[in-house]
Amino acid sequence: MPDAPAPSPVALTSAGAEILCIGTELLLGTITNGNARWLAEELAALGVPHFRQSVVGDNRERLIAQLREAAGRCQILITTGGLGPTPDDLTTEAIAAAFGAPLQERAEVWADIQAKMAARGRVASPSNRKQALLPQGATLLPNPSGTAPGMIWSPMPPEPGFPIRPGFTVLTFPGVPSELRAMWAATAVPWLRQAGLAKGVFASRLLRFWGVAESSLAESVADLLALENPTVAPYAGTGEVKLRITARAETAAAAEALLQPVEAELRQRTGVTCFGADGDSLASVVLDRLRQRGDTLAVAESCTGGGLGAALAAVPGASDVFLGGVIAYANAVKQELLGVPAELLHSHGAVSDPVARAMARGVQRLTGATWTISVTGVAGPGGGSAEKPVGTVFMAVAGPPVASAGLECSSGLWQAGATRGRAWLQAVAAGEALNRLRLRLEALEADSCPGG
Amino acid sequence: MPDAPAPSPVALTSAGAEILCIGTELLLGTITNGNARWLAEELAALGVPHFRQSVVGDNRERLIAQLREAAGRCQILITTGGLGPTPDDLTTEAIAAAFGAPLQERAEVWADIQAKMAARGRVASPSNRKQALLPQGATLLPNPSGTAPGMIWSPMPPEPGFPIRPGFTVLTFPGVPSELRAMWAATAVPWLRQAGLAKGVFASRLLRFWGVAESSLAESVADLLALENPTVAPYAGTGEVKLRITARAETAAAAEALLQPVEAELRQRTGVTCFGADGDSLASVVLDRLRQRGDTLAVAESCTGGGLGAALAAVPGASDVFLGGVIAYANAVKQELLGVPAELLHSHGAVSDPVARAMARGVQRLTGATWTISVTGVAGPGGGSAEKPVGTVFMAVAGPPVASAGLECSSGLWQAGATRGRAWLQAVAAGEALNRLRLRLEALEADSCPGG
Repeated sequence: MPDAPAPSPVALTSAGAEILCIGTELLLGTITNGNARWLAEELAALGVPHFRQSVVGDNRERLIAQLREAAGRCQILITTGGLGPTPDDLTTEAIAAAFGAPLQERAEVWADIQAKMAARGRVASPSNRKQALLPQGATLLPNPSGTAPGMIWSPMPPEPGFPIRPGFTVLTFPGVPSELRAMWAATAVPWLRQAGLAKGVFASRLLRFWGVAESSLAESVADLLALENPTVAPYAGTGEVKLRITARAETAAAAEALLQPVEAELRQRTGVTCFGADGDSLASVVLDRLRQRGDTLAVAESCTGGGLGAALAAVPGASDVFLGGVIAYANAVKQELLGVPAELLHSHGAVSDPVARAMARGVQRLTGATWTISVTGVAGPGGGSAEKPVGTVFMAVAGPPVASAGLECSSGLWQAGATRGRAWLQAVAAGEALNRLRLRLEALEADSCPGG
Repeated sequence: MPDAPAPSPVALTSAGAEILCIGTELLLGTITNGNARWLAEELAALGVPHFRQSVVGDNRERLIAQLREAAGRCQILITTGGLGPTPDDLTTEAIAAAFGAPLQERAEVWADIQAKMAARGRVASPSNRKQALLPQGATLLPNPSGTAPGMIWSPMPPEPGFPIRPGFTVLTFPGVPSELRAMWAATAVPWLRQAGLAKGVFASRLLRFWGVAESSLAESVADLLALENPTVAPYAGTGEVKLRITARAETAAAAEALLQPVEAELRQRTGVTCFGADGDSLASVVLDRLRQRGDTLAVAESCTGGGLGAALAAVPGASDVFLGGVIAYANAVKQELLGVPAELLHSHGAVSDPVARAMARGVQRLTGATWTISVTGVAGPGGGSAEKPVGTVFMAVAGPPVASAGLECSSGLWQAGATRGRAWLQAVAAGEALNRLRLRLEALEADSCPGG
């Protein structure tokens, strides 16, 4: 049967949106509620008022109770989780029951589920079939990757006199973050935009920083953090710090016009610590610059074990710049593959500036890359010493010489400290190495354009 | 005035505990709600039933509304946040207002605040003084580090007929995680233990699976998913599927005794797809097995770009097994470093079974590792063809021969499909490669112990 048309958006009132995350694993503390945070950020960026978040387990009665409460209170209820094929996935069924609507199988959803399972060499099981059920009148939110579709639905009051807010609409999403995010962008955002967003149109820009603490960055722009339109808000990431600028206006062009001078002021004040905006990553920025120069890049990694290469390979189209490299986790690999002299390893230790330089030069010799980066350090928790505690990392960048610095291989210590643990250290070491290459490229370009 | 005695704990009913996190930064998505997760884990470990979490902003009316709702629903309400000195810190004031109790300054709290500020070389400000206010009848929860104390309080109904659950008790904590955790351990845990914890003690085990869909796994253990004590619940991860077993009893030993036969049954039914439990990862399991054998491991990665090595290096102590390897992203690196014959690349393409095998053998030659794994594939979004669409990955495992399989280098296609995107594909390809080595090790051990 053809899908029902999506409910026409009603202008948002101050009742706003609520987020309801469904899953016993959240109540057991097995996982952190990253979906609530991500959705909250999206709602803020879209200018949709958002006053409450809730979490409930995989329990039919409690879920129904929460759904019925929310229907009387908010305009838009966004749920995550409970759309999978297993018996504890109850969301769609509970929503239908909460508002007394029958469930119907959607043939196109069942066909899509079967096709997706077949593409993975699997056969759709009877339990997958329940994912093809939606309440009568609901509009399908297709899931481009997983088998669990979502829906947009404006239920009717289940019984006379039941308090349901006019225009109340529920949007369901899977709990798998990548699926939630893809579906949100493809379906919910356009629908919410169509809703007119009583607060106007928002434009936002996320500026990305490396090499500056959140508190220092915030202090240097304190006056701008107090602005009301656009607003500027700082966020800390893994090694990275971000400033989100959000402007609100009648039209997208007017919002962008409000935003731009503040962005320009922020970029001017923060200088080289601002490495990019929005979807940029350190890896994507570095790859873009190298691509423009026609240069290539290779890596030599010890303590990051491949994480630096993986950060580069995560960028689509990396292959025209990134050649690969050597994971030299063991000293024998440093010596035999990268040609690090045994004597250097012996006299300075694997975690040392001379070894970092020899690694960068070694992988340059092996691959012929224009640029190479090396990382060697103590990731912990073991392996530290008084002289080289956990968190001691040496990095080198080899490439075309910067005349003003007189170097073709720049290197140095990065002292990260041990307090944040191995995973943080490995991830941030890879970022720091990329940032050092970025700064080298900045210096090189400043060199060649002394006027610029 | 002396503190009121702590309310005597009432045996917990099924109404259980709720967590209410207070702070506009949570609604804006500025921060992740790590406190809710941490408290949820603590409640689970203590065996305190916990059915709902909520988040509300720094808004007096909405906060009061949530407090009054919760009073009719749960036994214990745990709040975090809103205890600071700034005007948007409203928790204590809102709780007093919600239940119609006057606030009183506690002289000892004000003295403590002044002393703590003085120790930091600061003078307590008038805004700090509001932190010394508590509702009449509340018991102080001292804050050993910060200036914001919490409280335990069982309010009376604010007006006749107001629905308040007998024994309803609210516990307040600051939002600063370190302060919350210290106060929780020092004050709330003893109080909750005194409450008798009607539901007893929990024991839980997380079993981890690879190479099976969540839906198939759930079907194969459907009868166990219906158990009530212990409970068994499935979760999907990135490529991985998990089953959590949770048992409840009077003592930890009794809970473990309930859990064990179900764990044994699950392991028996799921066989080789169950790769580990709790904190295990595919990488940690493979490294442990190789360590026991005294073997070493190296990798040759194309489409994963270092992600396989990074997964291995993420495990503390990997270095006694994991030697490193080659990131052969470009064909030139495959050819020159790994010695993949140009003719193979030419006739079969870089994404092919013969090239995967040549990569695994090449890195074995270079490093001398006992075992090597190679991965070459089309990660997308570009680069696919009709014959080799995005998601086509070839992998090889080279190592000691398995007599029954007659192979020293096993290899094959892994067809993942393109729907889940590049990041998913790269992460899951690394997992799949590790799993193939794990299965090879299983086969090898079965070979050498035909009786076992």
